[in-house]
Amino acid sequence: MSSNPAAFRRRNPLTGEWVLVSPHRNNRPWSGATEEPSKVELPAYESNCPLCPGNARANDTSNPNYESTFVFKNDFAALTEHEIEPVDASDLFQEQSAVGEARVICFSPEHNKTLPQLTEQELLSVVNTWQREYSELSEIYNCVQIFENKGEVMGCSQPHPHGQIWAHQHLATEVEKEELSQKAYFDDHSSALLSDYVAAETKDASRTVCENDHWLVVVPFWAKWPFETLLVSKDGIADFIALNQAQKLALASILKELTTRYDNVFNTSFPYSMGWHNAPSTLEDKSHWVLHAHFYPPLLRSATIKKHMVGYEMLGESQRDLTPELAAKILREVSSTHYLEN
Amino acid sequence: MSSNPAAFRRRNPLTGEWVLVSPHRNNRPWSGATEEPSKVELPAYESNCPLCPGNARANDTSNPNYESTFVFKNDFAALTEHEIEPVDASDLFQEQSAVGEARVICFSPEHNKTLPQLTEQELLSVVNTWQREYSELSEIYNCVQIFENKGEVMGCSQPHPHGQIWAHQHLATEVEKEELSQKAYFDDHSSALLSDYVAAETKDASRTVCENDHWLVVVPFWAKWPFETLLVSKDGIADFIALNQAQKLALASILKELTTRYDNVFNTSFPYSMGWHNAPSTLEDKSHWVLHAHFYPPLLRSATIKKHMVGYEMLGESQRDLTPELAAKILREVSSTHYLEN
Ligand SMILES: O=P(O)(O)O[C@H]1O[C@H](CO)[C@@H](O)[C@H](O)[C@H]1O
Ligand SMILES: O=P(O)(O)O[C@H]1O[C@H](CO)[C@@H](O)[C@H](O)[C@H]1O
Repeated sequence: MSSNPAAFRRRNPLTGEWVLVSPHRNNRPWSGATEEPSKVELPAYESNCPLCPGNARANDTSNPNYESTFVFKNDFAALTEHEIEPVDASDLFQEQSAVGEARVICFSPEHNKTLPQLTEQELLSVVNTWQREYSELSEIYNCVQIFENKGEVMGCSQPHPHGQIWAHQHLATEVEKEELSQKAYFDDHSSALLSDYVAAETKDASRTVCENDHWLVVVPFWAKWPFETLLVSKDGIADFIALNQAQKLALASILKELTTRYDNVFNTSFPYSMGWHNAPSTLEDKSHWVLHAHFYPPLLRSATIKKHMVGYEMLGESQRDLTPELAAKILREVSSTHYLEN
Repeated sequence: MSSNPAAFRRRNPLTGEWVLVSPHRNNRPWSGATEEPSKVELPAYESNCPLCPGNARANDTSNPNYESTFVFKNDFAALTEHEIEPVDASDLFQEQSAVGEARVICFSPEHNKTLPQLTEQELLSVVNTWQREYSELSEIYNCVQIFENKGEVMGCSQPHPHGQIWAHQHLATEVEKEELSQKAYFDDHSSALLSDYVAAETKDASRTVCENDHWLVVVPFWAKWPFETLLVSKDGIADFIALNQAQKLALASILKELTTRYDNVFNTSFPYSMGWHNAPSTLEDKSHWVLHAHFYPPLLRSATIKKHMVGYEMLGESQRDLTPELAAKILREVSSTHYLEN
C-alpha cells in the first residue's frame, strides 16, 4: 500500500486519451472471477487442429506440410472484397464499405510452441513473414493490421501459435488517432513523437524493460493494462518494409526476451493481444511515423486474476492500480531465461 | 449467413469512433474459452458478504440493517481527496492529480436479487438513490460517473446487487469526447444530437427495443457490443437532477423491461456494464446534452460465449458480427416477462 493514497491521471500522446492511476488500490481483496490457467502439456501435433501441418481446414481445404511459418486466407474473414450500398449519409447515420482481406499466420508447425519457446532463428522467420506479408498487402491496402491474440482469455480460439493480418483501405480508428497525433507533434516540433519519446525513456530508464541496438521496450508512461509494453524502433523506421537484416535480427532477439519475461512474471504462458502500428501505406511523407508494437496483457495479480476494463473504464476512462514504473521494475527483475527451461 | 458477405463500418457520432460490422462472420466455429454460467441459487442473506445488511466490512465498519438501498464510501476507492505533485509537464509526459471520491450503492438488502427481479417500486428507490447521490456529488464534482458492473465476467467481485459512483473534478476521457461531439453538433444544427437521434430512431423503429412516454431503448446504429443498448431520455433532459416523478417512474419501468429482456435472450442472468452520462455539472448551458445510459453486455452466442474485444479491436477498432438491427429484433422478440417467473 503506497503511503500517499493519491490518484492521478496520465495522458497518452498517441491517442489523446487519459488513464486514471490509483496505486493505493493495489491491495484490495478479490472474490470475483478467476481464469483457468492456460492448459499446459499440449502435443506437438494435434490431429483436430485446423492449423497443424497437413490437417484439413474449413471449406474442404487442407494445410501443406509446412516446416516454418505458413500463411493462409482466413476461412472466416471479417473483411472481404465485397462492397455495400451505404445508407444515405447524415451526421447521425454514417456508414461506409469496408473492403479488405484477412489472413492467418502460423508461427510454427509445432502445435505446442509459443513465441518465447521458438529459437531466435525461428523468430526471424516470423519477422520475415510479417515483412513479406506487409510488403505485399500494403501495395493494395492503406492499413495493414498485424496482430496476435494469445490465450483463451484473449479470445484466441486455437492454441496453435498464430497471428492474424486484417488489411483494408480505410484507416482503422486507433491508427487514425495515432496518425493525427504524430502528424501534429511533428508539425510542432520538427521531430517524430516516438523518436523523442525513445530518447527521453532511454535517458530516464525507470520504465525500461529491455533494449538492444535497434529496439526499446518500455512500460509506457501512459500504460493502461497492468503489464502493457511498447516495443519501438530506435532507428525511427516508419514501417515493416524499411527493416534491414540487423534490425530484423535484433527484433527476433528482443521478441524472445520480452515474451520470456512475460511468462516469467507468473510462471505461466502469459496471455496478451499484441499488434503492429505501421505508417499508413499511401502516406507520401512518413517522417512523423515510427514503427511500433503494443502489447496488451490482461493479467494483474496472478496467472488467473486479470484486470477488468469494465464499467468505469468503458464509460469514463481506463484505470490501473500498480504504477507503470512498478510494472517495469517487475518485468526487468524477472529472469530472461524461460521458467520452463530451468 | 448473410448472402452478401460484405463488411461495412458505422460511425459513433458521440465519440467519432467507427465500428467494423461483418455480418457474414456470424457462423464461424468456436473452440476457445467459454465462461461459467453465473451461479444461480444464491441465498437471500450471506453472512460473508460485505454488502448484506448488518454485516462487517473492511476497516472495522459494519452495514446498518438497511431495508431498501444503501450507499457507503468505497472501502478501496480508486479516487481520494489527496493530490500529487505532477511531473513537469511536457507534450509527452502529461500528468495531473485526480481528486474525487467513490461510493458503492447496494440496490437491495437481498443478496440474490438483480435489477429485473426487483419490483418497479424497488427500482424507483434505486432511481431516487441515483438522483440523490448525483445531486449531492455534482455540487462538489464536475463529473459524476454512476455505473454497474454485473456478473463475474464483468469484473464484478460481489454478487450482491450493487452499483458504484466515481466522482471527480476532471472530465473523464469518454465524457469529454461526448461533450465535444454534442457541443459541435448543437453549434451546427441548433438542436441536440441525441434529441435528433431519438426522433430518427422513433420513426425508423428497426433498432428500437422498447420505449415508453419518457424513455427510448435502441441498439444504436453504431453499437459495438453484440447486444449493446442506449437508454435515452425522450424529453431532452440534461442530467439526473432534472428528472421529475413521472420520468423517474417511467425509468423504473423501462429498466425492469430492458434487464428482463436481456435475461431472456439466453435464459441467464445477463452480464453487462452499464452507466449514466450526465452533462458536466459546471456547464452553464446544457442545451446540447441529453441524459442517457449505455449498456455494454459481452455475451454473443450463448450464456457462456462472449465477444472478445481483443487484438484487432484494441489496435484497430471495435468489430461486431451480428448487425445492430438483428440484435434489436432479438431483444424485441423475447418475452418481457422474466424467464424465472414462468
Ligand atoms: O470496484 P470493483 O467492483 O472492485 O472493481 C471492478 O470495477 C472497477 C470499475 O469499473 C474496475 O476498475 C475493476 O477492474 C473491476 O474489477
Ligand atoms: O479471429 P478469431 O481468432 O476467431 O477471433 C478473435 O480475434 C478477433 C480479432 O481480434 C476478434 O474479433 C474475436 O472477437 C476474437 O475471438
